[in-house]
Amino acid sequence: MAVGWFYLSVLALCSLGSICILSTIYWMRYWHGGFAWDGSILMFNWHPVLMVTSMVVLYSAASLVYRLPQSWVGPRLPWKSGHAAMHLLAFLLTVLGLHAVFEFHNHAKIPHLYSLHSWLGITTIFLFACQWFLGFSVFLLPWASMWLRSLLKPIHVFFGASILSLAIASVVSGINEKLFFSLKNGTKSYSNLPSEAVFANCAGMLVVVFGLLVLYILLASSWKRPEPGMQAEREVWGLGLLFQVGVGPGLGRGHPVKAWALPGRPAQ
Amino acid sequence: MAVGWFYLSVLALCSLGSICILSTIYWMRYWHGGFAWDGSILMFNWHPVLMVTSMVVLYSAASLVYRLPQSWVGPRLPWKSGHAAMHLLAFLLTVLGLHAVFEFHNHAKIPHLYSLHSWLGITTIFLFACQWFLGFSVFLLPWASMWLRSLLKPIHVFFGASILSLAIASVVSGINEKLFFSLKNGTKSYSNLPSEAVFANCAGMLVVVFGLLVLYILLASSWKRPEPGMQAEREVWGLGLLFQVGVGPGLGRGHPVKAWALPGRPAQ
Repeated sequence: MAVGWFYLSVLALCSLGSICILSTIYWMRYWHGGFAWDGSILMFNWHPVLMVTSMVVLYSAASLVYRLPQSWVGPRLPWKSGHAAMHLLAFLLTVLGLHAVFEFHNHAKIPHLYSLHSWLGITTIFLFACQWFLGFSVFLLPWASMWLRSLLKPIHVFFGASILSLAIASVVSGINEKLFFSLKNGTKSYSNLPSEAVFANCAGMLVVVFGLLVLYILLASSWKRPEPGMQAEREVWGLGLLFQVGVGPGLGRGHPVKAWALPGRPAQ
Repeated sequence: MAVGWFYLSVLALCSLGSICILSTIYWMRYWHGGFAWDGSILMFNWHPVLMVTSMVVLYSAASLVYRLPQSWVGPRLPWKSGHAAMHLLAFLLTVLGLHAVFEFHNHAKIPHLYSLHSWLGITTIFLFACQWFLGFSVFLLPWASMWLRSLLKPIHVFFGASILSLAIASVVSGINEKLFFSLKNGTKSYSNLPSEAVFANCAGMLVVVFGLLVLYILLASSWKRPEPGMQAEREVWGLGLLFQVGVGPGLGRGHPVKAWALPGRPAQ
């Protein structure tokens, strides 16, 4: 049953993520003339597509790597490298998405970074860059001690979830802003809810639902790799014999899996 | 040191929350003519003030009740009642804030609920209502079993944090929308960043910082009341003698406090 729930959630996430990307592409193609890379408004159209793809869907996929039961056994390094590489790809696509809107602004003589959407978006990307470099330096390079990793891990996990939340807030405010820009005329004004407004509002709400589902799996589900400190912790508590608690998704591997979530001090 | 950090955080939160409310009031008074309750645009001005006050600041204060060390000892009922009462007050102010914008729309013949901001906002309020009724029914009324409470608590905690995140996304998109409405003219357009735009953008960013700080204390800090299942858990692990682990804010009470956060299964 638990296995079923796990793979059902993976399927739901993959489908929902794909729908979020495809609906943003459809919005830009059907109502805004498609795509180009020439500084025109068609170049701007890459901005929402690349941001939803990178900061929401790919970022989520990269964050959820450690929830796959396959990642719970064997060496951590390949999974850490995959986690870092996927986040790096997400970051590069984010920079492309940023370039798309900046180039459009340059050509159309529109000032950069004036709206609250842009302030929040650029802050989110800045935090993402800091998070990636901190994660790479501390958790992937071999120099950091276990003590330092244990100290920084809850902060890394918290900011990981926070950056996703800020990205979703940026996407919501961005879709809202774009619709106010493009739906100004009388019969097609945003307040009359023409088909574009309904479609893009639904796309925005889907991004929110996707984000909540990802955050739930990330923070509150029991599908977590057991912490290395857990065995030591139980021994400190005087048990000697280790219980095989097995309260994860029940995949029959017999690991001492337990529902830790966003640990304040993971290896205490 | 840990005690200092705790009370420093409380002080920072109280100050930041007050600044968020006061800056929203100042924005509406200084640039939009103040307040009235007559269906005019001055009635709309209550909307951002009431929403920031209720859905962000008061909601956060109500959510953080259990982080006060005073709540860790003695019976839970008074703290639960306080938690529920503060959330109810927040909800009532939210409904007032909703009424302010609906009345303004009615008088100005503006359609309701068309923007993504409004869709997200009304969804957040709906979730808040469900959360309150579920919390009241299961955690405050005496009929529910410990099993049911344990099952629903992580969901209650997750949705508690999610509703705050959605409220912040709603506030950001709302401030963005209001600035596009009010700053349309050439020299005072939003893209020229007049003083109102800078002020309201900063207010929006402060709300985001406040929200992140609250979520950190709520989800990732070790300032948590020890779960009732913890003693039993440690005994199950064969210790007999209970360690006084004391890794909370170190307030010298000697409780077996441990950094649980958003537990997947709280009492296992």
